[in-house]
Amino acid sequence: MAKKRVGAKLWIIPDSYLPEQSTGGMKSHESACVLNLQSRAAKIKLTVYFEDREPLGGFEAICPPARTVHIRLEGLKNNRGEFIPVAKPMALMVESNVDVIVQHTRLDTTQPALALMTTIAFPLS
Amino acid sequence: MAKKRVGAKLWIIPDSYLPEQSTGGMKSHESACVLNLQSRAAKIKLTVYFEDREPLGGFEAICPPARTVHIRLEGLKNNRGEFIPVAKPMALMVESNVDVIVQHTRLDTTQPALALMTTIAFPLS
Amino acid sequence: MAKKRVGAKLWIIPDSYLPEQSTGGMKSHESACVLNLQSRAAKIKLTVYFEDREPLGGFEAICPPARTVHIRLEGLKNNRGEFIPVAKPMALMVESNVDVIVQHTRLDTTQPALALMTTIAFPLS
Amino acid sequence: MAKKRVGAKLWIIPDSYLPEQSTGGMKSHESACVLNLQSRAAKIKLTVYFEDREPLGGFEAICPPARTVHIRLEGLKNNRGEFIPVAKPMALMVESNVDVIVQHTRLDTTQPALALMTTIAFPLS
Repeated sequence: MAKKRVGAKLWIIPDSYLPEQSTGGMKSHESACVLNLQSRAAKIKLTVYFEDREPLGGFEAICPPARTVHIRLEGLKNNRGEFIPVAKPMALMVESNVDVIVQHTRLDTTQPALALMTTIAFPLS
Repeated sequence: MAKKRVGAKLWIIPDSYLPEQSTGGMKSHESACVLNLQSRAAKIKLTVYFEDREPLGGFEAICPPARTVHIRLEGLKNNRGEFIPVAKPMALMVESNVDVIVQHTRLDTTQPALALMTTIAFPLS
Repeated sequence: MAKKRVGAKLWIIPDSYLPEQSTGGMKSHESACVLNLQSRAAKIKLTVYFEDREPLGGFEAICPPARTVHIRLEGLKNNRGEFIPVAKPMALMVESNVDVIVQHTRLDTTQPALALMTTIAFPLS
Repeated sequence: MAKKRVGAKLWIIPDSYLPEQSTGGMKSHESACVLNLQSRAAKIKLTVYFEDREPLGGFEAICPPARTVHIRLEGLKNNRGEFIPVAKPMALMVESNVDVIVQHTRLDTTQPALALMTTIAFPLS
């Protein structure tokens, strides 16, 4: 499992968005899902990009070795106590100190029923 | 953040389509979501390809440094005042003068409720 | 536009499936969406793989230069007059004589409302 | 068809999840869809990663040459008789002894109607 290259340290998600509304029992949400196949913990840093303001950084998570972490954006607080806003077109940068693999998923229940979308994020270096 | 290679200058979306109808409060739409991690503004050009007619170009957008822009296709006007037609099978080419990363998303409410689909676009050079 | 490499000649879609049922006005369907950025027509060949029988080939389409073609699987007839079966787990191979880019999309209305999924296909050589 | 490189031997799906509930006639499920374009059978091994416990391995499948197999996670039993749990954030590693191509799809009917998501998995060596 401890291959030399098991993913990348930098992953990009150009379409991020936290829906404001939900219907039914499932809350609309978005996740950056990380898998760490390395032998030491991955320190994950998230930076949020906007259309009309400076990027918002300081969001952190830990992914232990041989574990996944599905980082849900809503409720995530950065090191200044700030949250990611809802209903704003955004993009995400996921940085890790060790190689990881990242998939991006949104679940949207804004209108009755359920919509899902997913993609492997875009790896950079 | 100013890495040498932060994406690509040319991105392809072979399945583009603007649904004609919407239900509920959310309008069906499609977006090319761009993130610019470079230090200067990205000039974005969109070209739309069809099954049965010449490509339609001249659609432009700007993505400032450290910003995202979610380019919604409906309502977009080119430099000759033309719009992208609805209900036509299309493909998109997204060109930028600097490296960017592009994700393609469609939200479809043609039938009650909500459908979403997304993928990282295909990078060319 | 006439770059040396504008895609690949061989694309793989491991999850293909034609839903048997539809609800509402939209018929469940699946498409292999092709964009041809080369200066000559692309001859496209589709081969369908199954879990429990020999592959089914002989499905053809043409994508002219600077055009897209969204090849809908249902209703497609091969050179022996055979159709692609419904309700069978399948995979697709899309071959072209010139480089193209391929995206795979399924629209499923088996249960009321609408589900969509898409991904850029996997390029081989 | 027997190209030198027809995919990869190791594929990663960072966002795996088996929904606990279903509505309507379609059961929520998730699949790793494999296509084998080689001339000999592919022995597939699945390992499931979690957020808070050791990985769960020992899930196996065979994909004959020129066949696809859509491995549905629910109901899959490993060599110790264990099942993959529902309602847990997970990630998947798909290993094969020969090159294959893998696409990941989830169908979710937790809330009335149908949601679909898909992506080509991330290839590692």
